[in-house]
Amino acid sequence: MVKKYGLEDVSKATVSRMATYLRCLTYLEQQGASTLSSRELASLTGVSAEQVRQDLSVFGRFGKRGTGYDVAHLKTEVEAIFGRGVERWKCCIVGVGSLGTALMSSRMVQKWGFRYVAAFDRDPRKIGTHVERIPVYSIDELKTIVRREHIAIGVIAVPASSARNVARILCEAGIRGILNFAPQSIKVPEKVPMLSVDLSQEFLKLSFYIQSAEQRAREEQIQIDAASHNE
Amino acid sequence: MVKKYGLEDVSKATVSRMATYLRCLTYLEQQGASTLSSRELASLTGVSAEQVRQDLSVFGRFGKRGTGYDVAHLKTEVEAIFGRGVERWKCCIVGVGSLGTALMSSRMVQKWGFRYVAAFDRDPRKIGTHVERIPVYSIDELKTIVRREHIAIGVIAVPASSARNVARILCEAGIRGILNFAPQSIKVPEKVPMLSVDLSQEFLKLSFYIQSAEQRAREEQIQIDAASHNE
Repeated sequence: MVKKYGLEDVSKATVSRMATYLRCLTYLEQQGASTLSSRELASLTGVSAEQVRQDLSVFGRFGKRGTGYDVAHLKTEVEAIFGRGVERWKCCIVGVGSLGTALMSSRMVQKWGFRYVAAFDRDPRKIGTHVERIPVYSIDELKTIVRREHIAIGVIAVPASSARNVARILCEAGIRGILNFAPQSIKVPEKVPMLSVDLSQEFLKLSFYIQSAEQRAREEQIQIDAASHNE
Repeated sequence: MVKKYGLEDVSKATVSRMATYLRCLTYLEQQGASTLSSRELASLTGVSAEQVRQDLSVFGRFGKRGTGYDVAHLKTEVEAIFGRGVERWKCCIVGVGSLGTALMSSRMVQKWGFRYVAAFDRDPRKIGTHVERIPVYSIDELKTIVRREHIAIGVIAVPASSARNVARILCEAGIRGILNFAPQSIKVPEKVPMLSVDLSQEFLKLSFYIQSAEQRAREEQIQIDAASHNE
């Protein structure tokens, strides 16, 4: 693959869809699929075939007209776009509550090449223990350990009130990127990429889809009633 | 607001951005902002001003040319689009592990009008207890309780191996929508909207942005070096 793109030119929506394609390709490969069309990939991921072709074209030419994509090859190429195989990303988590524990126990995250090497908390009862086999340290040790272990990604899973302070410490420690799960807007230096994940947004979206589905069902019922009335 | 749209015509990406606008508007209202332009809303949410105008135009006319949007009014309208104020959505969670507990303790989800009224688990040590003040029942009681309490949303927070079975039971109980946090693809009847949330995707996206930022930094350094060489 020839890298013809500047990574900074790729839209957030494209990056998000590429991650979805990768998950889908991984699943298809496990199922033994060898080729697929952009139409099939589109249908499996809920976008249009044109969108699939457009997204992939940002990164190069992967398919042959008429024969579609080779699943294993496309998966390897998309993995490379996401830096998989390039490095195993060392992660740390700050905040060993229920969310932090849930995140550390995610096998999926490990499967994608991310590895937790340290957890941090303020609670003396947690410091010195292991959670999901990951050692829990005091937040006071964060800078030392992030530097010593060359930790790339810091995951913030503390309450909203502490999130900004934790982000500051992570940046001072030289972290390369941050995933923020705290419901708190955070500013970090522009050179440190940060993604904020707000799970409540998923509830909002679902409530929209429920209303949408129920409105459609009502409209269909009205048509059925009208049709039977006119018989 | 005149409902001129068929809800089923709205794209997933638009719904997702509308949820982000709503979060942003809520924050701005708390900060005391009274008006804002599409450009400002765009800048705060990381999309183009044209995209903001296009998304909002799907649902009606909210702004005046030149004066922009009234924050409180726009927030109320977007809330109505998401059914907020229309009803308080009753939720149940299946799986009271660390993820289930983390989800139940999210204040943000409650703030948006979602309320957990029941949790379900198979573990006899958990059944009969309360987690975050929510009663934990046996999964055997799920159908009875979902029907009796008119629970709208079922949240799946069980391991991948049990997720499909739980989804089937929820659908049989007449659940109106499902949020699936298990790393397992699930099929449900088309009339039951379901969103699957895969937290590992956020790690993938972040690794892309880290590489992107570091590539940009290297390129800038090369330009600086070349410039100083040419001096």
